[in-house]
Amino acid sequence: MPFVRIDALRADSDRLDALGRAVHDALVETIGIPPDDRFQVLVSHDGISSTLRFDDYLGVHRDDGITYVAITMRSGRTPAQKHAETEPRNVFVTLTENESIDWSLGDGAAQYVVSPDVAGSPSAGLGN
Amino acid sequence: MPFVRIDALRADSDRLDALGRAVHDALVETIGIPPDDRFQVLVSHDGISSTLRFDDYLGVHRDDGITYVAITMRSGRTPAQKHAETEPRNVFVTLTENESIDWSLGDGAAQYVVSPDVAGSPSAGLGN
Amino acid sequence: MPFVRIDALRADSDRLDALGRAVHDALVETIGIPPDDRFQVLVSHDGISSTLRFDDYLGVHRDDGITYVAITMRSGRTPAQKHAETEPRNVFVTLTENESIDWSLGDGAAQYVVSPDVAGSPSAGLGN
Repeated sequence: MPFVRIDALRADSDRLDALGRAVHDALVETIGIPPDDRFQVLVSHDGISSTLRFDDYLGVHRDDGITYVAITMRSGRTPAQKHAETEPRNVFVTLTENESIDWSLGDGAAQYVVSPDVAGSPSAGLGN
Repeated sequence: MPFVRIDALRADSDRLDALGRAVHDALVETIGIPPDDRFQVLVSHDGISSTLRFDDYLGVHRDDGITYVAITMRSGRTPAQKHAETEPRNVFVTLTENESIDWSLGDGAAQYVVSPDVAGSPSAGLGN
Repeated sequence: MPFVRIDALRADSDRLDALGRAVHDALVETIGIPPDDRFQVLVSHDGISSTLRFDDYLGVHRDDGITYVAITMRSGRTPAQKHAETEPRNVFVTLTENESIDWSLGDGAAQYVVSPDVAGSPSAGLGN
Protein backbone atom coordinates (compact mmCIF):
# COMPACT_ATOMS: atom_id res chain seq x y z
CA MET A 1 0.00 0.00 0.00
CA PRO A 2 2.64 2.57 0.58
CA PHE A 3 3.31 4.39 -2.65
CA VAL A 4 6.90 5.57 -2.69
CA ARG A 5 8.82 7.99 -4.90
CA ILE A 6 12.60 7.83 -4.67
CA ASP A 7 14.72 10.51 -6.33
CA ALA A 8 18.51 10.31 -6.56
CA LEU A 9 21.27 12.08 -8.50
CA ARG A 10 23.23 10.33 -11.25
CA ALA A 11 22.40 6.86 -9.98
CA ASP A 12 22.92 3.91 -12.29
CA SER A 13 20.26 1.22 -12.47
CA ASP A 14 22.03 -0.91 -9.86
CA ARG A 15 22.02 1.94 -7.37
CA LEU A 16 18.38 2.72 -8.09
CA ASP A 17 17.54 -0.91 -7.53
CA ALA A 18 19.49 -0.98 -4.26
CA LEU A 19 17.75 2.18 -3.04
CA GLY A 20 14.35 0.73 -3.84
CA ARG A 21 15.14 -2.47 -1.95
CA ALA A 22 16.60 -0.65 1.05
CA VAL A 23 13.60 1.62 1.42
CA HIS A 24 11.15 -1.24 1.09
CA ASP A 25 13.09 -3.42 3.55
CA ALA A 26 13.02 -0.56 6.04
CA LEU A 27 9.24 -0.25 5.70
CA VAL A 28 8.80 -3.99 6.12
CA GLU A 29 11.03 -4.13 9.18
CA THR A 30 9.93 -0.99 10.99
CA ILE A 31 6.21 -0.65 10.38
CA GLY A 32 5.19 -4.10 9.24
CA ILE A 33 4.45 -3.46 5.56
CA PRO A 34 3.95 -6.85 3.81
CA PRO A 35 7.01 -7.89 1.77
CA ASP A 36 5.03 -8.06 -1.47
CA ASP A 37 3.37 -4.68 -0.95
CA ARG A 38 5.91 -2.72 -2.96
CA PHE A 39 4.91 0.12 -5.27
CA GLN A 40 7.70 2.51 -6.19
CA VAL A 41 8.75 5.12 -8.72
CA LEU A 42 12.55 5.30 -8.89
CA VAL A 43 14.17 8.19 -10.73
CA SER A 44 17.78 9.11 -11.33
CA HIS A 45 18.30 12.75 -12.22
CA ASP A 46 21.12 13.58 -14.62
CA GLY A 47 21.76 17.00 -13.08
CA ILE A 48 20.94 18.75 -16.37
CA SER A 49 17.42 18.09 -17.65
CA SER A 50 16.40 17.21 -14.13
CA THR A 51 18.16 17.67 -10.85
CA LEU A 52 17.92 17.88 -7.08
CA ARG A 53 18.64 20.83 -4.80
CA PHE A 54 19.56 20.51 -1.14
CA ASP A 55 21.25 22.32 1.71
CA ASP A 56 22.96 21.43 4.98
CA TYR A 57 19.86 22.58 6.86
CA LEU A 58 19.77 21.68 10.58
CA GLY A 59 23.43 20.75 10.52
CA VAL A 60 23.09 17.57 8.49
CA HIS A 61 25.78 17.53 5.84
CA ARG A 62 24.42 16.39 2.50
CA ASP A 63 26.15 15.67 -0.80
CA ASP A 64 25.34 14.25 -4.23
CA GLY A 65 24.37 11.00 -2.53
CA ILE A 66 21.21 12.76 -1.39
CA THR A 67 18.13 10.58 -1.73
CA TYR A 68 14.60 11.90 -1.45
CA VAL A 69 12.03 9.36 -0.29
CA ALA A 70 8.40 10.50 -0.46
CA ILE A 71 5.95 8.01 1.00
CA THR A 72 2.18 8.14 0.69
CA MET A 73 0.30 5.76 2.93
CA ARG A 74 -2.88 5.37 4.91
CA SER A 75 -2.96 6.98 8.31
CA GLY A 76 -2.81 4.74 11.35
CA ARG A 77 0.86 4.22 12.05
CA THR A 78 1.84 5.38 15.51
CA PRO A 79 4.45 8.06 16.01
CA ALA A 80 6.68 5.38 17.53
CA GLN A 81 6.43 3.34 14.35
CA LYS A 82 7.15 6.37 12.23
CA HIS A 83 10.07 7.30 14.44
CA ALA A 84 11.90 4.01 13.96
CA GLU A 85 15.38 5.13 13.06
CA THR A 86 16.45 3.34 9.94
CA GLU A 87 17.76 5.89 7.51
CA PRO A 88 21.30 7.14 6.97
CA ARG A 89 22.54 10.71 6.84
CA ASN A 90 21.77 11.48 3.23
CA VAL A 91 18.20 10.23 3.11
CA PHE A 92 15.44 12.80 3.36
CA VAL A 93 12.02 11.30 4.05
CA THR A 94 8.57 12.81 3.84
CA LEU A 95 5.37 10.99 4.63
CA THR A 96 1.90 12.00 3.51
CA GLU A 97 -1.11 10.19 4.88
CA ASN A 98 -4.51 9.58 3.41
CA GLU A 99 -7.38 7.16 4.10
CA SER A 100 -8.46 3.70 3.06
CA ILE A 101 -10.95 5.02 0.53
CA ASP A 102 -8.15 6.92 -1.20
CA TRP A 103 -6.58 3.83 -2.75
CA SER A 104 -7.30 1.63 -5.71
CA LEU A 105 -4.70 -1.06 -6.15
CA GLY A 106 -6.07 -2.21 -9.48
CA ASP A 107 -9.13 -3.89 -10.95
CA GLY A 108 -11.00 -0.63 -10.42
CA ALA A 109 -11.72 -1.50 -6.80
CA ALA A 110 -11.01 0.32 -3.56
CA GLN A 111 -9.41 -2.75 -1.97
CA TYR A 112 -9.07 -1.30 1.52
CA VAL A 113 -12.80 -0.70 1.84
CA VAL A 114 -14.55 -3.86 2.97
CA SER A 115 -18.07 -3.52 1.60
CA PRO A 116 -19.94 -1.89 -1.28
CA ASP A 117 -21.58 0.34 1.33
CA VAL A 118 -19.22 3.26 1.00
CA ALA A 119 -21.60 6.04 1.92
CA GLY A 120 -20.16 6.55 5.39
CA SER A 121 -16.73 7.36 6.66
CA PRO A 122 -13.77 5.31 5.51
CA SER A 123 -14.18 1.70 6.58
CA ALA A 124 -11.74 -0.65 8.19
CA GLY A 125 -9.30 -2.02 5.65
CA LEU A 126 -7.83 -5.38 4.74
CA GLY A 127 -4.69 -5.06 6.83
CA ASN A 128 -1.75 -3.24 5.36
CA MET B 1 -8.18 21.49 -9.82
CA PRO B 2 -7.07 17.96 -9.47
CA PHE B 3 -3.33 17.77 -9.99
CA VAL B 4 -2.43 14.39 -11.39
CA ARG B 5 0.86 12.55 -11.85
CA ILE B 6 0.81 9.55 -14.14
CA ASP B 7 3.80 7.22 -14.32
CA ALA B 8 4.10 4.41 -16.85
CA LEU B 9 6.85 2.10 -18.14
CA ARG B 10 8.26 2.42 -21.66
CA ALA B 11 5.20 4.25 -22.97
CA ASP B 12 5.47 6.13 -26.25
CA SER B 13 3.95 9.58 -26.53
CA ASP B 14 0.71 8.19 -27.96
CA ARG B 15 0.26 5.91 -24.98
CA LEU B 16 1.09 8.70 -22.54
CA ASP B 17 -1.46 10.87 -24.25
CA ALA B 18 -4.10 8.14 -24.11
CA LEU B 19 -3.43 7.54 -20.41
CA GLY B 20 -3.78 11.22 -19.65
CA ARG B 21 -7.08 11.41 -21.51
CA ALA B 22 -8.45 8.24 -19.92
CA VAL B 23 -7.66 9.40 -16.40
CA HIS B 24 -9.15 12.82 -17.00
CA ASP B 25 -12.27 11.39 -18.61
CA ALA B 26 -12.72 9.14 -15.58
CA LEU B 27 -12.50 12.12 -13.23
CA VAL B 28 -14.97 14.09 -15.32
CA GLU B 29 -17.45 11.23 -15.48
CA THR B 30 -17.23 9.92 -11.94
CA ILE B 31 -16.75 12.92 -9.71
CA GLY B 32 -17.80 15.82 -11.90
CA ILE B 33 -14.47 17.51 -12.54
CA PRO B 34 -14.94 20.17 -15.26
CA PRO B 35 -13.67 19.02 -18.67
CA ASP B 36 -11.21 21.91 -18.94
CA ASP B 37 -9.84 21.40 -15.42
CA ARG B 38 -6.92 19.23 -16.49
CA PHE B 39 -3.48 19.54 -14.95
CA GLN B 40 -1.22 16.55 -15.40
CA VAL B 41 2.39 15.43 -15.34
CA LEU B 42 2.85 12.40 -17.61
CA VAL B 43 6.09 10.44 -17.38
CA SER B 44 7.31 7.37 -19.22
CA HIS B 45 10.13 5.55 -17.43
CA ASP B 46 12.74 3.83 -19.60
CA GLY B 47 13.43 1.11 -17.04
CA ILE B 48 17.09 2.18 -16.73
CA SER B 49 17.56 5.77 -15.58
CA SER B 50 14.10 5.66 -14.08
CA THR B 51 11.76 2.80 -13.45
CA LEU B 52 8.75 1.45 -11.59
CA ARG B 53 8.58 -1.38 -9.07
CA PHE B 54 5.43 -3.34 -8.33
CA ASP B 55 4.21 -6.65 -6.93
CA ASP B 56 1.11 -8.81 -7.21
CA TYR B 57 0.03 -7.62 -3.74
CA LEU B 58 -3.55 -8.54 -2.75
CA GLY B 59 -3.81 -10.98 -5.64
CA VAL B 60 -3.95 -8.41 -8.43
CA HIS B 61 -1.63 -9.52 -11.20
CA ARG B 62 0.40 -6.62 -12.54
CA ASP B 63 2.82 -6.39 -15.45
CA ASP B 64 4.80 -3.78 -17.35
CA GLY B 65 1.51 -2.11 -18.26
CA ILE B 66 1.37 -0.88 -14.66
CA THR B 67 0.25 2.73 -14.41
CA TYR B 68 0.55 4.80 -11.27
CA VAL B 69 -1.97 7.60 -10.94
CA ALA B 70 -1.40 9.99 -8.03
CA ILE B 71 -4.15 12.56 -7.62
CA THR B 72 -4.05 15.62 -5.37
CA MET B 73 -7.35 17.40 -4.91
CA ARG B 74 -9.39 19.32 -2.41
CA SER B 75 -11.28 17.32 0.15
CA GLY B 76 -15.04 17.11 -0.18
CA ARG B 77 -15.68 14.18 -2.48
CA THR B 78 -17.81 11.52 -0.86
CA PRO B 79 -16.55 7.97 -0.41
CA ALA B 80 -19.18 6.92 -2.95
CA GLN B 81 -17.72 9.30 -5.50
CA LYS B 82 -14.23 8.11 -4.76
CA HIS B 83 -15.36 4.52 -5.00
CA ALA B 84 -16.70 4.83 -8.54
CA GLU B 85 -15.16 1.88 -10.29
CA THR B 86 -13.55 3.05 -13.46
CA GLU B 87 -10.02 1.73 -13.51
CA PRO B 88 -8.66 -1.45 -15.05
CA ARG B 89 -6.48 -4.09 -13.42
CA ASN B 90 -3.12 -2.47 -13.94
CA VAL B 91 -3.93 1.00 -12.66
CA PHE B 92 -2.84 1.86 -9.15
CA VAL B 93 -4.46 5.02 -7.81
CA THR B 94 -3.63 7.12 -4.77
CA LEU B 95 -5.49 10.21 -3.72
CA THR B 96 -4.20 12.92 -1.40
CA GLU B 97 -6.52 15.64 -0.24
CA ASN B 98 -5.85 19.19 0.82
CA GLU B 99 -7.95 22.35 1.22
CA SER B 100 -9.10 25.26 -0.92
CA ILE B 101 -6.41 27.56 0.43
CA ASP B 102 -3.76 25.10 -0.70
CA TRP B 103 -4.13 25.91 -4.39
CA SER B 104 -2.97 28.66 -6.68
CA LEU B 105 -3.99 28.06 -10.26
CA GLY B 106 -1.96 30.95 -11.59
CA ASP B 107 -1.87 34.73 -11.46
CA GLY B 108 -0.57 34.45 -7.90
CA ALA B 109 -4.08 34.06 -6.55
CA ALA B 110 -5.68 31.39 -4.40
CA GLN B 111 -8.62 30.99 -6.77
CA TYR B 112 -10.67 28.72 -4.55
CA VAL B 113 -10.81 31.25 -1.75
CA VAL B 114 -13.60 33.72 -2.36
CA SER B 115 -12.51 36.86 -0.53
CA PRO B 116 -9.36 38.66 0.57
CA ASP B 117 -10.43 37.86 4.14
CA VAL B 118 -8.39 34.72 4.52
CA ALA B 119 -7.81 34.82 8.25
CA GLY B 120 -10.36 32.12 9.04
CA SER B 121 -10.76 28.56 7.97
CA PRO B 122 -10.71 27.67 4.28
CA SER B 123 -13.61 29.34 2.53
CA ALA B 124 -16.11 27.95 0.12
CA GLY B 125 -14.62 27.61 -3.33
CA LEU B 126 -15.58 28.47 -6.86
CA GLY B 127 -16.95 25.09 -7.79
CA ASN B 128 -14.57 22.37 -8.71
CA MET C 1 11.51 21.47 5.53
CA PRO C 2 9.30 22.14 2.63
CA PHE C 3 9.85 19.46 0.03
CA VAL C 4 9.14 20.90 -3.40
CA ARG C 5 8.68 19.33 -6.81
CA ILE C 6 8.89 21.68 -9.78
CA ASP C 7 7.90 20.49 -13.26
CA ALA C 8 8.42 22.55 -16.41
CA LEU C 9 8.35 21.96 -20.15
CA ARG C 10 11.51 22.03 -22.27
CA ALA C 11 13.44 24.08 -19.72
CA ASP C 12 17.23 24.22 -19.99
CA SER C 13 19.30 23.88 -16.84
CA ASP C 14 19.53 27.66 -16.41
CA ARG C 15 15.76 27.97 -16.44
CA LEU C 16 15.34 25.06 -14.04
CA ASP C 17 17.84 26.69 -11.74
CA ALA C 18 16.03 30.03 -11.93
CA LEU C 19 12.68 28.38 -11.19
CA GLY C 20 14.11 26.61 -8.17
CA ARG C 21 15.56 29.84 -6.82
CA ALA C 22 12.38 31.83 -7.46
CA VAL C 23 10.17 29.32 -5.70
CA HIS C 24 12.50 29.08 -2.73
CA ASP C 25 12.86 32.87 -2.47
CA ALA C 26 9.06 33.14 -2.47
CA LEU C 27 8.81 30.64 0.40
CA VAL C 28 11.48 32.47 2.38
CA GLU C 29 9.86 35.83 1.87
CA THR C 30 6.22 34.95 2.32
CA ILE C 31 6.10 32.29 5.01
CA GLY C 32 9.46 32.58 6.70
CA ILE C 33 11.15 29.38 5.52
CA PRO C 34 14.86 29.53 6.48
CA PRO C 35 17.11 30.36 3.51
CA ASP C 36 19.10 27.13 3.85
CA ASP C 37 16.01 24.96 4.14
CA ARG C 38 15.82 24.09 0.47
CA PHE C 39 14.93 20.61 -0.75
CA GLN C 40 13.75 20.42 -4.35
CA VAL C 41 13.28 18.08 -7.27
CA LEU C 42 13.48 20.02 -10.55
CA VAL C 43 12.37 18.31 -13.74
CA SER C 44 12.22 19.50 -17.33
CA HIS C 45 9.90 17.45 -19.53
CA ASP C 46 10.87 17.03 -23.17
CA GLY C 47 7.27 16.79 -24.37
CA ILE C 48 7.81 13.28 -25.72
CA SER C 49 8.92 10.75 -23.11
CA SER C 50 7.42 12.97 -20.46
CA THR C 51 5.16 15.96 -20.70
CA LEU C 52 2.70 18.27 -19.01
CA ARG C 53 -0.98 18.80 -19.76
CA PHE C 54 -2.89 21.95 -18.87
CA ASP C 55 -5.96 23.96 -19.76
CA ASP C 56 -7.13 27.56 -19.46
CA TYR C 57 -9.36 26.52 -16.55
CA LEU C 58 -10.93 29.43 -14.59
CA GLY C 59 -9.93 31.88 -17.28
CA VAL C 60 -6.19 31.85 -16.62
CA HIS C 61 -4.40 31.59 -19.95
CA ARG C 62 -1.54 29.10 -19.79
CA ASP C 63 1.11 28.19 -22.32
CA ASP C 64 4.27 26.10 -22.56
CA GLY C 65 5.76 28.24 -19.82
CA ILE C 66 3.49 26.41 -17.39
CA THR C 67 5.25 25.47 -14.17
CA TYR C 68 3.83 23.05 -11.63
CA VAL C 69 4.99 23.60 -8.08
CA ALA C 70 3.98 20.90 -5.58
CA ILE C 71 4.92 21.69 -2.00
CA THR C 72 4.79 19.30 0.93
CA MET C 73 5.22 20.89 4.33
CA ARG C 74 4.13 20.62 7.93
CA SER C 75 0.78 22.11 8.79
CA GLY C 76 0.70 25.29 10.81
CA ARG C 77 0.92 28.07 8.24
CA THR C 78 -2.04 30.41 8.43
CA PRO C 79 -4.33 30.94 5.47
CA ALA C 80 -3.00 34.49 5.30
CA GLN C 81 0.54 33.18 4.96
CA LYS C 82 -0.54 30.70 2.33
CA HIS C 83 -2.44 33.39 0.50
CA ALA C 84 0.57 35.66 0.04
CA GLU C 85 0.42 36.51 -3.62
CA THR C 86 3.80 35.86 -5.13
CA GLU C 87 3.33 33.74 -8.20
CA PRO C 88 2.88 34.75 -11.82
CA ARG C 89 0.20 33.66 -14.26
CA ASN C 90 1.74 30.43 -15.42
CA VAL C 91 2.59 28.95 -12.05
CA PHE C 92 0.25 26.33 -10.67
CA VAL C 93 0.81 25.60 -6.99
CA THR C 94 -0.46 22.79 -4.80
CA LEU C 95 0.31 22.38 -1.15
CA THR C 96 0.01 19.20 0.86
CA GLU C 97 0.43 19.28 4.60
CA ASN C 98 1.60 16.66 7.03
CA GLU C 99 2.94 16.65 10.60
CA SER C 100 6.25 16.99 12.39
CA ILE C 101 6.58 13.25 12.88
CA ASP C 102 6.30 12.76 9.13
CA TRP C 103 9.78 14.08 8.36
CA SER C 104 13.28 12.73 8.57
CA LEU C 105 15.83 15.18 7.27
CA GLY C 106 18.68 12.69 7.44
CA ASP C 107 20.73 10.80 10.00
CA GLY C 108 17.72 8.53 10.52
CA ALA C 109 16.17 11.00 12.94
CA ALA C 110 12.80 12.71 13.01
CA GLN C 111 14.35 16.14 13.54
CA TYR C 112 11.11 17.98 14.15
CA VAL C 113 10.21 15.83 17.13
CA VAL C 114 11.98 17.11 20.23
CA SER C 115 12.33 14.03 22.45
CA PRO C 116 12.59 10.25 22.18
CA ASP C 117 9.15 10.12 23.81
CA VAL C 118 7.16 9.89 20.61
CA ALA C 119 4.18 7.96 21.88
CA GLY C 120 1.86 10.98 21.95
CA SER C 121 0.71 13.40 19.35
CA PRO C 122 3.26 15.22 17.19
CA SER C 123 5.46 17.39 19.38
CA ALA C 124 6.56 20.94 18.94
CA GLY C 125 9.26 21.22 16.34
CA LEU C 126 12.59 22.93 16.00
CA GLY C 127 11.38 26.03 14.21
CA ASN C 128 10.65 25.75 10.53
